[in-house]
Amino acid sequence: MGKIVFGVDIGGTTVKLGLFDDEGSVLTKWEIPTVTENHGSHILKDIADSVNEKRAAFGYQLKDVIGVGVGAPGPVDAAGIIYGAVNLGWSELNIAQTLQPLVGVPVKAGNDANVAALGEMWKGGGRGCQDVVAVTLGTGVGGGIIVNGALVAGFNGAGGEIGHMLVEENETEPCNCGLCGCLEQYASATGVVRLAKRRLQQDGEPSSLRGLGEALTCKDVWDAVRAQDAVAIEVAERFGYYLGKGLAAVACVVNPEAFVIGGGVSKAGEILFDYIVPPYRKFVFPGSRKARFLLAELGNDAGIYGAAKLVLG
Amino acid sequence: MGKIVFGVDIGGTTVKLGLFDDEGSVLTKWEIPTVTENHGSHILKDIADSVNEKRAAFGYQLKDVIGVGVGAPGPVDAAGIIYGAVNLGWSELNIAQTLQPLVGVPVKAGNDANVAALGEMWKGGGRGCQDVVAVTLGTGVGGGIIVNGALVAGFNGAGGEIGHMLVEENETEPCNCGLCGCLEQYASATGVVRLAKRRLQQDGEPSSLRGLGEALTCKDVWDAVRAQDAVAIEVAERFGYYLGKGLAAVACVVNPEAFVIGGGVSKAGEILFDYIVPPYRKFVFPGSRKARFLLAELGNDAGIYGAAKLVLG
Repeated sequence: MGKIVFGVDIGGTTVKLGLFDDEGSVLTKWEIPTVTENHGSHILKDIADSVNEKRAAFGYQLKDVIGVGVGAPGPVDAAGIIYGAVNLGWSELNIAQTLQPLVGVPVKAGNDANVAALGEMWKGGGRGCQDVVAVTLGTGVGGGIIVNGALVAGFNGAGGEIGHMLVEENETEPCNCGLCGCLEQYASATGVVRLAKRRLQQDGEPSSLRGLGEALTCKDVWDAVRAQDAVAIEVAERFGYYLGKGLAAVACVVNPEAFVIGGGVSKAGEILFDYIVPPYRKFVFPGSRKARFLLAELGNDAGIYGAAKLVLG
Repeated sequence: MGKIVFGVDIGGTTVKLGLFDDEGSVLTKWEIPTVTENHGSHILKDIADSVNEKRAAFGYQLKDVIGVGVGAPGPVDAAGIIYGAVNLGWSELNIAQTLQPLVGVPVKAGNDANVAALGEMWKGGGRGCQDVVAVTLGTGVGGGIIVNGALVAGFNGAGGEIGHMLVEENETEPCNCGLCGCLEQYASATGVVRLAKRRLQQDGEPSSLRGLGEALTCKDVWDAVRAQDAVAIEVAERFGYYLGKGLAAVACVVNPEAFVIGGGVSKAGEILFDYIVPPYRKFVFPGSRKARFLLAELGNDAGIYGAAKLVLG
């Protein structure tokens, strides 16, 4: 019987878990609810119970388990300490040290977006690359920086927080983080909708997006882009300008081989790159001009894969 | 007799060399001329001769030498390949593989600014830190990104090229790299002088800087700042705005513990921080707000220290 590893991705409503062999093939995956009552004090205990149960059910002993990797929604440093997770009710907590005695095997922890990036490098869109920047365009914009195959957690666990890079100094509406003009305000799903609504209010130019009103979604915008809607194309250009400019700045720091774009917005597909890549190439230092742009492939499973990889090293 | 390591810093006119023990104490340091004739084909041979001679003179045998580390002025990847060095007459060259048979010990190579950063982390201003961004404000602006104590070389050796991060979209004069509005155009010694000359032309406000004409230097500007010259202070604020904003973007990527500021401009001393830190804190993601700002300490020796550290790992 070969060795196994568990990958755990803690979300605000469910915890996703995966049991992998040491090559990264998934043997089984499942979910448990995230119990956030009592400041989330049950979460790690529930994870341990579920992991122990699954291990026994599959006939593995403790000595067969290389470890448990965990992704969590907050800043996590390289030692596995999370500096608060609002969605879980957690304040500062050493995830690795707390979970390890409950599962009896080594535990490693990382920020969920960072860990998902590691998963995409390992088994997803970035397969075969060692220097990858993963960008998750969802409700917010998350990032994961991978250098020589390893995550950049950052000194305070705030590595890869590229959603909060300043890209528009003239912005007046604040971002969730309190700053104004963050990349997240333009390149997230919410950001795309915001850009579209702003553009529609600007004048009366006809567009298929008019009439959708408050129900307008990010998907509507990209569908309209695909249908050659001139207003939607302007919105896509604005989105691409901010994201391309932001990623050019990222490239000046870590010079990646590839950017892997995931999250809900990336469901629009390769058409995104038509809008991101030209401004990226315009703004970036020549040495980073050839970086590849790839789509993420693992969807919601990126987190459990990356968490497993965190343990395998 | 303990083990030793050589650190080599190749510049356009001289090669600096250092012989260190394995703790990083310098036993001797010296220089040889950089012979750039014949496309710089003598440079590595000259270095090898000098290293072998010094080793013999100090009574060390090959088995006592851990290796030779080299910093070179161009993009160098993690394998030790340099992708051209205009100042040396080099096109693409595997420094590590070429030098190794000539010295008979392992060779590692890196970009000179990156290697200097490693030196400052190891024995200079960043001592004790593992996550450091070193910024060299000289003729240009160079950077070195250190994560978990190791250099981020980048996929094409262009890691840490923060001097070419876009910080001013309205710039019309081009940077040396061909782009417009790079950080280097405002935060280098040349950039500070340029900002000062622009400001002086703007109106007739009295300033001690007037009358220096073309001879105006970066040092003049900081001396005038220290003397409370209002025009010089405006220039310093502009310098700090661009540099603080650029470093805030860097922090969103790698979340360092500290920035170590070196190069000619840094001779102005801690007064720089009065102008860099407030815009940095204004623009940066909260998780990186506490990053420390430190002055580099090794001056021109940073390169040989860092090259030695590259070998020691």
